[in-house]
Amino acid sequence: MAYTTIKYDVADGILTITLSRPEKLNAFTGEMMAELIDAFDKADADDAVRAIIVTGDGRAFCAGADLSQGAKTFDYDNRKDAPRSEHGSPVREDGSVDYSHPAVRDGGGRVTLRIFKSLKPVIAAVNGPAVGIGVTMQLAMDIRLASEDAKFGFVFARRGIVPEAASSYFLPKLVGISQALEWCYSGRVFGAQEAKDGGLVRSVHKADELLPAAYALAREIADNTAPVSVALTRQMMWRMLGADNPMEAHKIDSRAIYARGRAGDAREGVVSFLEKRPAVYPDKVSDGMPDFFPWWDEREYR
Amino acid sequence: MAYTTIKYDVADGILTITLSRPEKLNAFTGEMMAELIDAFDKADADDAVRAIIVTGDGRAFCAGADLSQGAKTFDYDNRKDAPRSEHGSPVREDGSVDYSHPAVRDGGGRVTLRIFKSLKPVIAAVNGPAVGIGVTMQLAMDIRLASEDAKFGFVFARRGIVPEAASSYFLPKLVGISQALEWCYSGRVFGAQEAKDGGLVRSVHKADELLPAAYALAREIADNTAPVSVALTRQMMWRMLGADNPMEAHKIDSRAIYARGRAGDAREGVVSFLEKRPAVYPDKVSDGMPDFFPWWDEREYR
Amino acid sequence: MAYTTIKYDVADGILTITLSRPEKLNAFTGEMMAELIDAFDKADADDAVRAIIVTGDGRAFCAGADLSQGAKTFDYDNRKDAPRSEHGSPVREDGSVDYSHPAVRDGGGRVTLRIFKSLKPVIAAVNGPAVGIGVTMQLAMDIRLASEDAKFGFVFARRGIVPEAASSYFLPKLVGISQALEWCYSGRVFGAQEAKDGGLVRSVHKADELLPAAYALAREIADNTAPVSVALTRQMMWRMLGADNPMEAHKIDSRAIYARGRAGDAREGVVSFLEKRPAVYPDKVSDGMPDFFPWWDEREYR
Repeated sequence: MAYTTIKYDVADGILTITLSRPEKLNAFTGEMMAELIDAFDKADADDAVRAIIVTGDGRAFCAGADLSQGAKTFDYDNRKDAPRSEHGSPVREDGSVDYSHPAVRDGGGRVTLRIFKSLKPVIAAVNGPAVGIGVTMQLAMDIRLASEDAKFGFVFARRGIVPEAASSYFLPKLVGISQALEWCYSGRVFGAQEAKDGGLVRSVHKADELLPAAYALAREIADNTAPVSVALTRQMMWRMLGADNPMEAHKIDSRAIYARGRAGDAREGVVSFLEKRPAVYPDKVSDGMPDFFPWWDEREYR
Repeated sequence: MAYTTIKYDVADGILTITLSRPEKLNAFTGEMMAELIDAFDKADADDAVRAIIVTGDGRAFCAGADLSQGAKTFDYDNRKDAPRSEHGSPVREDGSVDYSHPAVRDGGGRVTLRIFKSLKPVIAAVNGPAVGIGVTMQLAMDIRLASEDAKFGFVFARRGIVPEAASSYFLPKLVGISQALEWCYSGRVFGAQEAKDGGLVRSVHKADELLPAAYALAREIADNTAPVSVALTRQMMWRMLGADNPMEAHKIDSRAIYARGRAGDAREGVVSFLEKRPAVYPDKVSDGMPDFFPWWDEREYR
Repeated sequence: MAYTTIKYDVADGILTITLSRPEKLNAFTGEMMAELIDAFDKADADDAVRAIIVTGDGRAFCAGADLSQGAKTFDYDNRKDAPRSEHGSPVREDGSVDYSHPAVRDGGGRVTLRIFKSLKPVIAAVNGPAVGIGVTMQLAMDIRLASEDAKFGFVFARRGIVPEAASSYFLPKLVGISQALEWCYSGRVFGAQEAKDGGLVRSVHKADELLPAAYALAREIADNTAPVSVALTRQMMWRMLGADNPMEAHKIDSRAIYARGRAGDAREGVVSFLEKRPAVYPDKVSDGMPDFFPWWDEREYR
């Protein structure tokens, strides 16, 4: 797949995905959705990728949905481009809607659910305005760093729609239900400091120090840790957010400790520590995930 | 229903509910419970209500359960007024208790579960002491603002009872399990600043600036956003706190984006934004909620 | 059971459990696991224990797994001591692993699941380095206080293994998913202030003020509150973290308010408050828990 709305660059173990429609402030389109999903597929399969940074080209991170369809922007059956028409229409002959129809599926949610499944750490480097899907796409990423120039807006209620991209799941888990509701109720656009105070971003940086800070964090992971350990950790933590009892975590981490404890990575991890030298982990994500992985059945849209 | 323990005032799109037994520091009674539930029913049905502020009359917010029954205060079958006697007694002939009996149901929980279902944003303006049910009733509200004169106390363990009003669900979600336990274990009464530091309240205000701040926040919602969007957002966020997988949010927000995207509100939301003018949203909560709403089966007490 | 790796001291209603292999920085062993589990059993059964403080002997809290087995440290079947061999081997004749086998069970998780069930409040007083299981064992404790000398490290990914002790359940609930992932991805060792800023510890103290602060907090509980109320509160709060709807909390707290409201503790709690005198609560955890307790079925490892 050749990308036209994003850039995909791997260097020194770090993949940088750059949202890249700078003349449109990187506004989100159906094409960008498909390319982002493909990029995360590619990253999971590539052992050269130890961590992922997502940023924006030019002065914005992502200005949200492309509004060039005006009043029909969110009217997916009646837009000129009908971006979901490949699936047919969910409207039945009697005018009612088949909500389990794939054409009903929100494109932002398709992206965040793909990021949720990522086996590599995902760091957002928010370089400028991030509004609507421009901010909700970040919520399934692991860590958000912001430039002083970043702005955020959960503007959905000002456009007559609702928060999407599964943000009703993700946002309260990141910032608490009260802060989530205040931002979504008001639809206000707010700056990097309010985002940090509210728990949405980890740290705020001068514009030219944002990417260096993101790379330093990615390096800390790539240079010191075992890739299979990191992949398992990511899925254990995100999946256990939905567990109803710590026994569910105990079942999985018991399996993981047992399986990884017999593996080359654990031998190298302990021995290199005792020998006070950098570790060289032998196992790979592409073929070294333990045999009980994945331990869940993927949930279907219906 | 004529209210005798609360006041109900709608002005400029904002409902103010005032707990009003000032001579008793607005202590909670069975009557206040019934009136609060009725008030939230009324607010949901009234399109003139865009947001709700809950505050207290006089120097307190709510001093908690009315202790005028002394040692029998929490002995619901044997109190003189037997406030739950309309349901009969849950005590069987052999002396054992039928815990699924409606007379066992905690009155505070009946209030917070009703607030949980609200279709309008709910802001607590905590003007003074809020103890026991006086603070736990706030936990299903969306945002809490406090006066410098506010005091809070989860005093249950000092009265030989336990945190109620479903606070074991709500409180750890607002302030984390460690802070929740420290406040409930100690039963200590604490001030507005500790409440803010612990994440219970959003902001602390001088006494005469509390209500203006609460109204400013309510205005920001009422003046800028689509009522149906706000109602859906409230239920999506609160309900998804209990979801075990982001796919559950994706199912609902896909339906909501699809349904709202075809509606007048979305057309007006986008066009007004492009035309840089205030929006006039045509849809109403009373008859404009999408056909898949509610998407859940209400949970029964049993 | 005579303890050789921990100390168990009860004084004035407060149990102090001291991890005590000071020459090994209190590194965790199978023996320490068994002794900790036994100590929490003993504490639950002893009405003289109103609160529990866990701390470390000497300059460390707990340096993590004992690495004296070198490369075989986490290879539980092939270590010389084979600490789980009492259960037999989970490896089948064909070389595959029976992951539901009890020998697969992580020892750290057996400790945190036992702490999860505790009927007494648990306060960690982190006096020095706490790494690996040394920090994850704290996550099922209620409140963590740290000395300025404390250090923390979720170092698993640097050893080629994964976070254990059900920390994928507990840690994001304490510090949020983003902070949890950053600490676990990087495996970095960090100080008390970063732990406080990240929400892992409640407060940081000078070395000689740590234990006094922990005892003061334990005293505040022991001196003012009803033991049965505290035991119920602990289980209600921790268990409701896994509830999918506030109605589940309403069911349990209704039962608890009803049952406790008729009990001697509630009479004494209200009367002592009205009489402005210290309460003397008559009910005991050992025989005074309400008849609906426990309200859950214990989850099995499988």
